[in-house]
Amino acid sequence: MNELHLFSMVSTGVAGLVIALGTMLPAIAMGRAIASALEALARQPEAEKTITRTLFIGLAMIESLAIYCLVIALIVLFRNPLLEYFLK
Amino acid sequence: MNELHLFSMVSTGVAGLVIALGTMLPAIAMGRAIASALEALARQPEAEKTITRTLFIGLAMIESLAIYCLVIALIVLFRNPLLEYFLK
Amino acid sequence: MNELHLFSMVSTGVAGLVIALGTMLPAIAMGRAIASALEALARQPEAEKTITRTLFIGLAMIESLAIYCLVIALIVLFRNPLLEYFLK
Amino acid sequence: MNELHLFSMVSTGVAGLVIALGTMLPAIAMGRAIASALEALARQPEAEKTITRTLFIGLAMIESLAIYCLVIALIVLFRNPLLEYFLK
Amino acid sequence: MNELHLFSMVSTGVAGLVIALGTMLPAIAMGRAIASALEALARQPEAEKTITRTLFIGLAMIESLAIYCLVIALIVLFRNPLLEYFLK
Repeated sequence: MNELHLFSMVSTGVAGLVIALGTMLPAIAMGRAIASALEALARQPEAEKTITRTLFIGLAMIESLAIYCLVIALIVLFRNPLLEYFLK
Repeated sequence: MNELHLFSMVSTGVAGLVIALGTMLPAIAMGRAIASALEALARQPEAEKTITRTLFIGLAMIESLAIYCLVIALIVLFRNPLLEYFLK
Repeated sequence: MNELHLFSMVSTGVAGLVIALGTMLPAIAMGRAIASALEALARQPEAEKTITRTLFIGLAMIESLAIYCLVIALIVLFRNPLLEYFLK
Repeated sequence: MNELHLFSMVSTGVAGLVIALGTMLPAIAMGRAIASALEALARQPEAEKTITRTLFIGLAMIESLAIYCLVIALIVLFRNPLLEYFLK
Repeated sequence: MNELHLFSMVSTGVAGLVIALGTMLPAIAMGRAIASALEALARQPEAEKTITRTLFIGLAMIESLAIYCLVIALIVLFRNPLLEYFLK
């Protein structure tokens, strides 16, 4: 069952790579959004409610991109439907 | 059935690569849009309704691009129509 | 049927590459357009209707470019007309 | 029929590459044009009709470039005239 | 007929490469021209007729460059005059 072993290795590598690459740029984007929010708060402290609400919804949208990567990484690790062809 | 095994490995790698690459630049674009929205809110707090509505529709459009990538990644993992030629 | 197997692998890779590359720069372009729209809203809130209409038509035009890539990726996966030469 | 199989693979790869590369920079160009249009609207809201008309004609011109790439990609996939030399 | 097959593959690849590379920079150039035209309209709305006429003639000139690439790509695919030496 050498192929199964190779497939396990490849899957582990893919899952790691996906989550590593897939959270890189969302992190940068979140940092930029938060930085702008803080700068905006410094200029208009009385608009606090609007700014934080806009920021949190925006962060949730960026977070969703990273969650897609997490989902694919978890599928590859836990429930890869292609794995069954190695077990038959 | 060695080809089926190789195909499974390639599919896993392609799915991972698609979602990792496909969420990178949408994340950056979202971050930029949110940053501009917050800056706009700081300058014109009274235009809040228009700004957040424009932002959310724009974020949804960018999100749709990432969802295309997710769809292709899930098709490759779960329902690749080309897989049947390996099973016959 | 070794060629059919190789063709399936190549097709899967091409479909993944097309959608990953094909949504990258449209996402950046959308982010830039939305950022400009929000900046314009901050400067001329009373021109809201014109600005959002122009933005949404523009986003739809950029979206169409990504949809071309999605169409080609789906054709390659599901209905590649060149596949029939492998099945005869 | 080995050459026909190789030709099919090459054609699929070429079609994918053409549409992926061919929509990248038109997307960037559209984003830039829309950004300028919105900035112009913010500065001269009363020139709205001229600005949007100029923008939409310009976007259609850029779109036509991406459509040329789509046409070539579809010809390569569906109706490549060079394919007949492989079938004789 | 091995040379004919190789020639067909090379022709398909060349046609795809020509249209993909040949529309990239014209798209960027158009985006830049449109951006400048819109900026000019914002500064001198009363010179609208001159600005749009200059822009459209310029866009047509840039478009002609991309059309040259399309013509070559279509000639290579459909009516390559060098093909006859492979058929004799």
